[in-house]
Amino acid sequence: MIITLLSDFGSLYQAAVKGVILGIAPEANIVDIAHDIPPQDVRAGAFALYSVARYFPSGTVHIGVVDPGVGTGRRPIAIKAGLEQAQYFVGPDNGLLIPAARSIGGFKVYEISNKELLKEVSPTFHGRDIFAPVGAHLARGLAIEAVGACIQDYCDLDFGVPKRFNKVIKGLIIHIDSFGNIISNIPAFMVGISYGSRLMVFSRWVSFVETYGLAAKGEPLALVGSHGFLEIGINQGNAAEVFGAKIGDVLEIVMG
Amino acid sequence: MIITLLSDFGSLYQAAVKGVILGIAPEANIVDIAHDIPPQDVRAGAFALYSVARYFPSGTVHIGVVDPGVGTGRRPIAIKAGLEQAQYFVGPDNGLLIPAARSIGGFKVYEISNKELLKEVSPTFHGRDIFAPVGAHLARGLAIEAVGACIQDYCDLDFGVPKRFNKVIKGLIIHIDSFGNIISNIPAFMVGISYGSRLMVFSRWVSFVETYGLAAKGEPLALVGSHGFLEIGINQGNAAEVFGAKIGDVLEIVMG
Amino acid sequence: MIITLLSDFGSLYQAAVKGVILGIAPEANIVDIAHDIPPQDVRAGAFALYSVARYFPSGTVHIGVVDPGVGTGRRPIAIKAGLEQAQYFVGPDNGLLIPAARSIGGFKVYEISNKELLKEVSPTFHGRDIFAPVGAHLARGLAIEAVGACIQDYCDLDFGVPKRFNKVIKGLIIHIDSFGNIISNIPAFMVGISYGSRLMVFSRWVSFVETYGLAAKGEPLALVGSHGFLEIGINQGNAAEVFGAKIGDVLEIVMG
Repeated sequence: MIITLLSDFGSLYQAAVKGVILGIAPEANIVDIAHDIPPQDVRAGAFALYSVARYFPSGTVHIGVVDPGVGTGRRPIAIKAGLEQAQYFVGPDNGLLIPAARSIGGFKVYEISNKELLKEVSPTFHGRDIFAPVGAHLARGLAIEAVGACIQDYCDLDFGVPKRFNKVIKGLIIHIDSFGNIISNIPAFMVGISYGSRLMVFSRWVSFVETYGLAAKGEPLALVGSHGFLEIGINQGNAAEVFGAKIGDVLEIVMG
Repeated sequence: MIITLLSDFGSLYQAAVKGVILGIAPEANIVDIAHDIPPQDVRAGAFALYSVARYFPSGTVHIGVVDPGVGTGRRPIAIKAGLEQAQYFVGPDNGLLIPAARSIGGFKVYEISNKELLKEVSPTFHGRDIFAPVGAHLARGLAIEAVGACIQDYCDLDFGVPKRFNKVIKGLIIHIDSFGNIISNIPAFMVGISYGSRLMVFSRWVSFVETYGLAAKGEPLALVGSHGFLEIGINQGNAAEVFGAKIGDVLEIVMG
Repeated sequence: MIITLLSDFGSLYQAAVKGVILGIAPEANIVDIAHDIPPQDVRAGAFALYSVARYFPSGTVHIGVVDPGVGTGRRPIAIKAGLEQAQYFVGPDNGLLIPAARSIGGFKVYEISNKELLKEVSPTFHGRDIFAPVGAHLARGLAIEAVGACIQDYCDLDFGVPKRFNKVIKGLIIHIDSFGNIISNIPAFMVGISYGSRLMVFSRWVSFVETYGLAAKGEPLALVGSHGFLEIGINQGNAAEVFGAKIGDVLEIVMG
């Protein structure tokens, strides 16, 4: 019975969520995905959840709380993704959960409306009052149809589609990891060059390599990282600092 | 068998505490409440523990380690709070555990003096050498009377009592969360106004609302947050930065 | 079934590692030792793992990932340390695991070469693709001989040997904790003075005491900390900031 948590809580609030989960499912094995998503940055949260969900076993329930619309009209939802290897997602209907759900397989979205699953619901903390109890009940085997009606008009979110013009690909920076590696939204198949080829990025020619350690120490490089996207790094250095790159910036690649 | 940890350890030291717990209670489901309490800030630690303890199920053992007096004369204590729905608290006798214990219900405090529960005790790390083993034994079902004698003269701590003069309430800032929301020690009942009313804080009129998203983006607001206290926030912004607020500052509210 | 994780991942990547572990060993009780090791700082990672491993019960599997050589020729290894009270270590062959293994007792090192334990192995993330599955299989009871051949030429690492000339000891700063305490590589036995004695460090005479609270508030002090090494602190203050100390600096002590 595995339940993951992803949020922009920083610290502390995640503990209340865990307390509620453990009150319903004391045996739950709770895993923190990340609680340092920039406040209210739904896209950054969606990328984080997307990048790790597929590594969890079937039956896992992922609770995501990056929720600027808490207490307003935005709906709480639960998702079943995949068929026999299903995983579950619980959180706000703001796109946060969709890329991760899609990465698992076909999915169905349900609006959480069954009040019997909930105790008192505060207007400021649905992570604790809605998503935690619903996630815990799903982990204990509740059929997802019991949370509410299946909906089609959920809020979708993607990481954008990079554009290609001859030798130039224009994408976006969607994540910078704690090593300073710059992760783009350019999928592996779009790169389509062989290891050892050169490409230009940030006005520099760099090698497209298999792994960081194949560049000299301090040398920039391009690779397809563990996220499945084109990534710009510096072997044992911090590429984001060196190139002044920020999430949301355009990343332009020129193939050699 | 749920054990929580709260500390000012930052990183690393918490792992030694968990190792000791798991040596005694391998099945323990250990939950981190927070390890980023400012060093030796007993009051900040007390607030963090207080704000989440009530969400944990009965039987939970909370270990708190914010302990500037480690190795000196300050006593180690264990607390049983609540009756049939009891939770337990283990830590130093410096007030850290008291607000949380009080939030659960009536409580009794015991001085830890039973050396049979402990191995070697270092003078610098009672979290690992005293609180972890005692907490693990309590989680496994040890009767709390077995840790030592019940005491009455424990060190108490509260968050202060705000003062009201006609339309003015003077309280203190007791917590700033990772969103920059400013949490005061003014309890909900003391506010006593209806949603939509205005109040003045930081020389600005703001609305008293149910939840963040009911203010315009970037607009300051007041609400009763998930802690049960009056809280000043900015919808999708950082109120503590904008208003230069710090923990310990006086917070003055003028009712409209 | 206890598995610990130590890494320089910061956030997020640790979750993929946990997902893979839980797919193989759903009952695993996973403990984070630290994920804030400075990027690629193998020595800092080795110290962190060394300082806490001994507190875990026998049977624990420690997975360490500080791995600048990922995807290059450096070998993946697994270690069995101790005899009847054995603990296991899994990670890169760069010295990261050795001090911790040595602290548990006699140890044997095995090169991980059994491909049957692994799924697809990416060139950039062996923590997820090699160390996680091997660690999970060891936790489930796999004999360590099944991972590959025993090797003798593993990469060793130690924290250096301080030098003593009469009353002067020259060591290195190997860790600074989140309180700002400065931990040296000078072992307790090398200090050999009694509590209350004075020694000079950073051009100041300080007392050698049993615990922080025995110095006045704000006063510097020396003690043998929970790591077993000489440590310079300031009671309720931040010694590293006050003395401008950094990891890797020489620490010179003059006995009184």
